[in-house]
Amino acid sequence: MKLINEKITDYIQNNQTFLLMTHQKPDGDAIGSVIALGRGLKQIGKQIDYFMQDPIEQNLSFFDEIKYFNKTENQSYDAVIVVDCSTWTHICKPAKLPEYKAVINIDHHITNEGYGDLNHVENVAAASELIYRLLKQMNIPLDEEMADALYTGISTDTGSFQFSNVTSATHQILAELYQYPYRYADIARRVHHEKSLMQMKMCGAAIENTTLINDATIAWTVLDYKTIHQYGGDINISDDIANIGINIKGVSIGVTLKEVEKDIYRVSLRASSECDFDVSSIAKCHDGGGHNKASGFTFQSNLEALKQEITSKFNEIKDGRNQ
Amino acid sequence: MKLINEKITDYIQNNQTFLLMTHQKPDGDAIGSVIALGRGLKQIGKQIDYFMQDPIEQNLSFFDEIKYFNKTENQSYDAVIVVDCSTWTHICKPAKLPEYKAVINIDHHITNEGYGDLNHVENVAAASELIYRLLKQMNIPLDEEMADALYTGISTDTGSFQFSNVTSATHQILAELYQYPYRYADIARRVHHEKSLMQMKMCGAAIENTTLINDATIAWTVLDYKTIHQYGGDINISDDIANIGINIKGVSIGVTLKEVEKDIYRVSLRASSECDFDVSSIAKCHDGGGHNKASGFTFQSNLEALKQEITSKFNEIKDGRNQ
Repeated sequence: MKLINEKITDYIQNNQTFLLMTHQKPDGDAIGSVIALGRGLKQIGKQIDYFMQDPIEQNLSFFDEIKYFNKTENQSYDAVIVVDCSTWTHICKPAKLPEYKAVINIDHHITNEGYGDLNHVENVAAASELIYRLLKQMNIPLDEEMADALYTGISTDTGSFQFSNVTSATHQILAELYQYPYRYADIARRVHHEKSLMQMKMCGAAIENTTLINDATIAWTVLDYKTIHQYGGDINISDDIANIGINIKGVSIGVTLKEVEKDIYRVSLRASSECDFDVSSIAKCHDGGGHNKASGFTFQSNLEALKQEITSKFNEIKDGRNQ
Repeated sequence: MKLINEKITDYIQNNQTFLLMTHQKPDGDAIGSVIALGRGLKQIGKQIDYFMQDPIEQNLSFFDEIKYFNKTENQSYDAVIVVDCSTWTHICKPAKLPEYKAVINIDHHITNEGYGDLNHVENVAAASELIYRLLKQMNIPLDEEMADALYTGISTDTGSFQFSNVTSATHQILAELYQYPYRYADIARRVHHEKSLMQMKMCGAAIENTTLINDATIAWTVLDYKTIHQYGGDINISDDIANIGINIKGVSIGVTLKEVEKDIYRVSLRASSECDFDVSSIAKCHDGGGHNKASGFTFQSNLEALKQEITSKFNEIKDGRNQ
């Protein structure tokens, strides 16, 4: 395996106090890579603080190390280490930053801005892959929680080893992680399947309210204000709900709409793996973001107009391709 | 890695004609291991026939090799090779067997009866793991379809690498499979997520018809005759539907009931990974089968009586444990 930037491992080796941070709304890879790195560096006598003030999803709250989050006391650090965050503005960080001598930036997003004084950016499936390699390179053994954390990071960022970002190296790391005592089956159930009754019912309602349009190439899923509040009011569109459409055989585009307020919708677009229509082209017209397979935006107006817009754009590209 | 029984590889090396079979209602591991083995042996000049007359699920029908299934012409074979089948009676085999000199039995179920003249039974996650090792041991390279087949076998028998049967060796094999040209992300979507609109709607209806009983420790899901026929009439309980209950936070036992005919139910029981109640104890009282985490039976009578029976047995064990 390729080495992690040795200037980073040398800097860590030769310094003492570190503040760990990651992106806003931390996901499994953000939390997993921060915890594995933090616990690992403590093992070799470093002083570690975590700035992790964004809420942690229920499904990811099982790590013991979380009790050390946000106990930050130091006024200054030898370095701030940021993992899994492609831009400086997107970091979950204190309103007033403490003093620090350097920023270390470790990330797997190829779009990373390189905002660190020392950077390691490499296009792998998860930041946790990089942290695994860094710990190995520094000869830091994994304890049980570190192994769980790295498993969580890789498993969540690859959709349980299913996405096209998985490589031979990903499974090589897993083969090594399974040499540690593990409870990965429980973690997998928790991070990929477990839902509250309300979340499960909202999923059911989303399926119920899915219709196929445009010769069954587009799935249209609407959750109205009343339904959302009947099932707990969570207005985020979970991956489970956003993916309902494209998991239906023959569907190219899945459109999921949650009515946040009267006639205001949070819209989520997904393209199936075989479909080469770039859904972010629609999101961008509505000041949204994302990438070609998954994007989103907020929409205020009538849904028929939006349905018309998406259908025509999709057919235009499709027809163009068939000519 | 441990060697596959060398008497098996020697026998294959020194003989010419083989009939491949697997268990009834073949799943991804059965089909994957048969196809990888069949194509591999053809590569080294062996003559291979497949007896695979049970229907193949839509999600698994993408293998090119399937076109060679059931073209059996020979009256006799040097060996019948059976993969992934623990008992002789459970093999999908011709009413009148052709002549054969030997039965070779390759399986990963520890309950395997050892019905072969030559046997390799080893408790690994999937029969496809054993076939991978056998091919490697015989120096047979994988072509693209063989790699896809082995991936399919391992991925389906491990719930996408989530079940507790996964080991370091499983991921080691995957690390090697990813060195071949692959389309595993597409296969994963197809075998784990893709549903017809009707299957998806049946899932939605099952969620809709799930209630929690016994202080929310038991999930009770009923699909009545009318609903089943509204959504295509498939009376099998798919894993997606059977697992709805135990994927709800706090639930220990998931009970799913499909009304096959008026007042006759196909019942599926699941226990969550943290629950040590053996659901097969209930299935056995009703002439059903399965194991401690997943079992099933047919039930004819009123559902309230069954609900009462399951609840009391579960509470009895639970209360016993708490004393």
